[in-house]
Amino acid sequence: LLFQNHKSVWFLQKNNSLDEKSRIGGSFKERQSSKNVLSCENRDPRFGHTETDFSNLFARDLLPAKNGEEPTMQFLLEVVDILTNYIRKTFDRSTKVLDFHHPHQLLEGIEGFNLELSDQPESLEQILVDCRDTLKYGVRTGHPRFFNQLSSGLDIIGLAGEWLTSTANTNMFTYEIAPVFVLMEQLTLKKMREIVGWPGGEGDGIFSPGGAISNMYSVMVARYKYYPEVKTKGMSAAPRLILFTSEHSHYSIKKAGAALGFGVENVILLKCDERGRVIPADLEAKIIDAKQKGYVPLFVNATAGSTVYGAFDPINEIADLCEKYNMWLHVDGAWGGGLLMSRKHRHKLSGIERANSVTWNPHKMMGVPLQCSAILVREKGLLQGCNQMCAGYLFQPDKQYDVTYDTGDKAIQCGRHVDIFKFWLMWKAKGTSGFEQHINKCLELSEYLYTKIKNREGYEMVFQGEPQHTNVCFWYLPPSLRGMPDCPERRERLHKVAPKIKAMMMESGTTMVGYQPQGDKVNFFRMVVSNPAATKSDIDFLIEEIERLGQDL
Amino acid sequence: LLFQNHKSVWFLQKNNSLDEKSRIGGSFKERQSSKNVLSCENRDPRFGHTETDFSNLFARDLLPAKNGEEPTMQFLLEVVDILTNYIRKTFDRSTKVLDFHHPHQLLEGIEGFNLELSDQPESLEQILVDCRDTLKYGVRTGHPRFFNQLSSGLDIIGLAGEWLTSTANTNMFTYEIAPVFVLMEQLTLKKMREIVGWPGGEGDGIFSPGGAISNMYSVMVARYKYYPEVKTKGMSAAPRLILFTSEHSHYSIKKAGAALGFGVENVILLKCDERGRVIPADLEAKIIDAKQKGYVPLFVNATAGSTVYGAFDPINEIADLCEKYNMWLHVDGAWGGGLLMSRKHRHKLSGIERANSVTWNPHKMMGVPLQCSAILVREKGLLQGCNQMCAGYLFQPDKQYDVTYDTGDKAIQCGRHVDIFKFWLMWKAKGTSGFEQHINKCLELSEYLYTKIKNREGYEMVFQGEPQHTNVCFWYLPPSLRGMPDCPERRERLHKVAPKIKAMMMESGTTMVGYQPQGDKVNFFRMVVSNPAATKSDIDFLIEEIERLGQDL
Repeated sequence: LLFQNHKSVWFLQKNNSLDEKSRIGGSFKERQSSKNVLSCENRDPRFGHTETDFSNLFARDLLPAKNGEEPTMQFLLEVVDILTNYIRKTFDRSTKVLDFHHPHQLLEGIEGFNLELSDQPESLEQILVDCRDTLKYGVRTGHPRFFNQLSSGLDIIGLAGEWLTSTANTNMFTYEIAPVFVLMEQLTLKKMREIVGWPGGEGDGIFSPGGAISNMYSVMVARYKYYPEVKTKGMSAAPRLILFTSEHSHYSIKKAGAALGFGVENVILLKCDERGRVIPADLEAKIIDAKQKGYVPLFVNATAGSTVYGAFDPINEIADLCEKYNMWLHVDGAWGGGLLMSRKHRHKLSGIERANSVTWNPHKMMGVPLQCSAILVREKGLLQGCNQMCAGYLFQPDKQYDVTYDTGDKAIQCGRHVDIFKFWLMWKAKGTSGFEQHINKCLELSEYLYTKIKNREGYEMVFQGEPQHTNVCFWYLPPSLRGMPDCPERRERLHKVAPKIKAMMMESGTTMVGYQPQGDKVNFFRMVVSNPAATKSDIDFLIEEIERLGQDL
Repeated sequence: LLFQNHKSVWFLQKNNSLDEKSRIGGSFKERQSSKNVLSCENRDPRFGHTETDFSNLFARDLLPAKNGEEPTMQFLLEVVDILTNYIRKTFDRSTKVLDFHHPHQLLEGIEGFNLELSDQPESLEQILVDCRDTLKYGVRTGHPRFFNQLSSGLDIIGLAGEWLTSTANTNMFTYEIAPVFVLMEQLTLKKMREIVGWPGGEGDGIFSPGGAISNMYSVMVARYKYYPEVKTKGMSAAPRLILFTSEHSHYSIKKAGAALGFGVENVILLKCDERGRVIPADLEAKIIDAKQKGYVPLFVNATAGSTVYGAFDPINEIADLCEKYNMWLHVDGAWGGGLLMSRKHRHKLSGIERANSVTWNPHKMMGVPLQCSAILVREKGLLQGCNQMCAGYLFQPDKQYDVTYDTGDKAIQCGRHVDIFKFWLMWKAKGTSGFEQHINKCLELSEYLYTKIKNREGYEMVFQGEPQHTNVCFWYLPPSLRGMPDCPERRERLHKVAPKIKAMMMESGTTMVGYQPQGDKVNFFRMVVSNPAATKSDIDFLIEEIERLGQDL
């Protein structure tokens, strides 16, 4: 019976096949070619296209519409078909990382892809075409050769977690409407605090919409701890407060200083050594200087894994100074926090257990889909005290359950997206050991890259010695620049090499890697590995590609 | 050939069927029953369960693993099967809205659902069970009888958009890695500004992680406009600045005041009329009072759709005062902004075109999945000026494309989740007209509720007259309280009625609606309609359910 049904449904739908209708150019072609791939491979009947005619169906025909169940399921499965094809291709090295177009080209409506919104609904057929086109002109951040950002890769378990999260479509502010997710967040934060090294995993924390907001929380909580009256009276109730962070640290500390009313002038940048690690003596000198001016040193950010160099500030030495001068110690481990999962590498964050707060973004080094960032606070109650406003309509004290599980009043947000589930599910699926393996592997790959290029002709390392994190920073020198002595002209020309190679990479779509200047150093490449799909062959490919594109510059 | 393959794959897998293995109680039963439903309905072979043996498969066997494509596809389709079953049941009124458990029950590991994380990986079979259990113990916010929050419903197009967004797994900070999404955001923001009424849709804006953050942006931008030196010098560079917002407004204005260094004392609450609308004369009196004290009135928030009453502040009268006293006018239309899409109801926001900034959350009244909130700013350049820090590693000026499309430096975030695509896709699929119909329908339903209960025995309205938004606020009086004169005892008893009924509702799982006190008013129900699945029968059901549960209190 099953097979008969299958057959009759199939043929019935075949007659309505989209193939027989005229459709717009590029997308149609793409669809055709993905069809061919499917019919050749023919692995599982569930991968076959539905041949439902979506050209006469509209959003209003889907659930909750009467008889909407059937078209809803057909539509969603068609979407999943588009997505699974995309996923397949993402991991296929013969697929481009991107198909680059300039903004004006996309805005002009390339190959019929029309971004403009209109008053009247489009058919579901057009919606499916739009979905294909959106992916077609995007960037495959999960591609094995995408190295452009600290967040890369496409973890299948994490992805499944996100699909479930969006289907559950709820909000973290109360246990009432997110009971399971609230508990998962609580247990996961405790586990993270244990790994940081706080006794018994005690303390507090929350997932926030990214590392910049997590860092902002740390400054807010520090201020509340030392000057709780600022909450009611404003910054004028406090003396001039100073925040310290290194010149290599993430710009979000300055953003927080500006937003929270400290002023960027009161965010003092600390000098780093050649490797990008903060110099503790400079911190102490600047603390003393601030105190002599009558200002109050409040907060030090120690970076664990800087954005460009991947440097780890010496946390213990900074912690000593924070104790000596009674300051808040925050560790920004947005990028480097993941190394805590590795017995081999966690020593780089030695001293983190002395921090008052820690930012740790599982969406970076741990490969969790965007967004997933935690702010951890050692002292309980501060987050709540700092942010709570006791809104009666959400945080009713007379609910039937233990309302201490309503965590919304700890946040500067009201509604808060469920970022925990994908992470929790990945942790279940990989175990702590799986994260450890992933991290060790990424560090091995970057060591491989470092070893490969450190003495290679045409390369110059931005700093000497093995990288601490997966960041490998280097200049590529085209043959025309090799042997030229250091002089303004050489610097000027070298400054243009990385952007040119990057532009060509993007136009050929073969790989992506970041570049930037830093301090007085002209543009250099910053290679980072967090993508679990990357292998030594991809590192080799990157080097070949840089040389191929750069040799005639 | 297709059918032969289908058949052989099917039988091959049947031998490895999960059914033959021992599995944990509750989830197994749920799985069994969903299987039965499927084999009875038997609509489409693609809905059938894969019979892959997931008990010997682990996350490490999925892509990017060698030969990982097959298990990846099988696993994802199994997840989709779980999700589509969940969706089907969500729209089925015979399904409960929730299966309530106390935190300690879930933490104890109810029916084998273990929330704890471990060092070793779990099999994919267990991961699938965890997915089912996560949904089983959650709350169906898309259920036609879920009225608990301003965000409700499960829009299928929006959901498809979220699935695609998580598959694309990218970041909004640069055009480089989110070209399509960045342009979609730009076009959609422009469209929203046109609808607000700013000439030519000119201005600026950004999607943020929720209304509270959008409101926080408005305060930051206002401060930057009038006192740009605060960015560098901190709040001490400005005089004492005062923010005004109504006593009925959302608590996020106070949160912003606390966070940004103004202090909650400097957030002055304005009196409202009986309907929860701000009294402009009170605003003017308080502006004059502040000025007399030597403070500087900076910012007024006018609420367009208050959280509890659904009240719309008189924007034009407030705008007159803002002009007179040279203040920033922000309209918090997080909840009410959606009414701009309706020609019938947009007059309630009359004057919004005079605002300097507007918060508008499509994830509330427009049914877009969480999170989707926009902050719109009339003057171009302020967002960028206020927040930019020019991080060299992200916002390289020497890219090959027009870098004005890199919007990340406008944000207080660094990485920013892609919230635009689901909204853009819904707009394409519904058209402006589809949103208009949805909004009109929700307002009709709440009018139906209001008409039904305003003279019904046992009901008392919290305020008189037709609601402006879908909020209907009322007390239910059990027979034991009817006829009792107003006195402390009656108030005390009435205060307990809504929480008791709500607790019973949650325990029976039949429906969910919010309650709260407000000012000197004891706990009352706040009914809101934003769920596109709700019908008159669901409103009737809610009333019956309140009466069934409350009659003996």
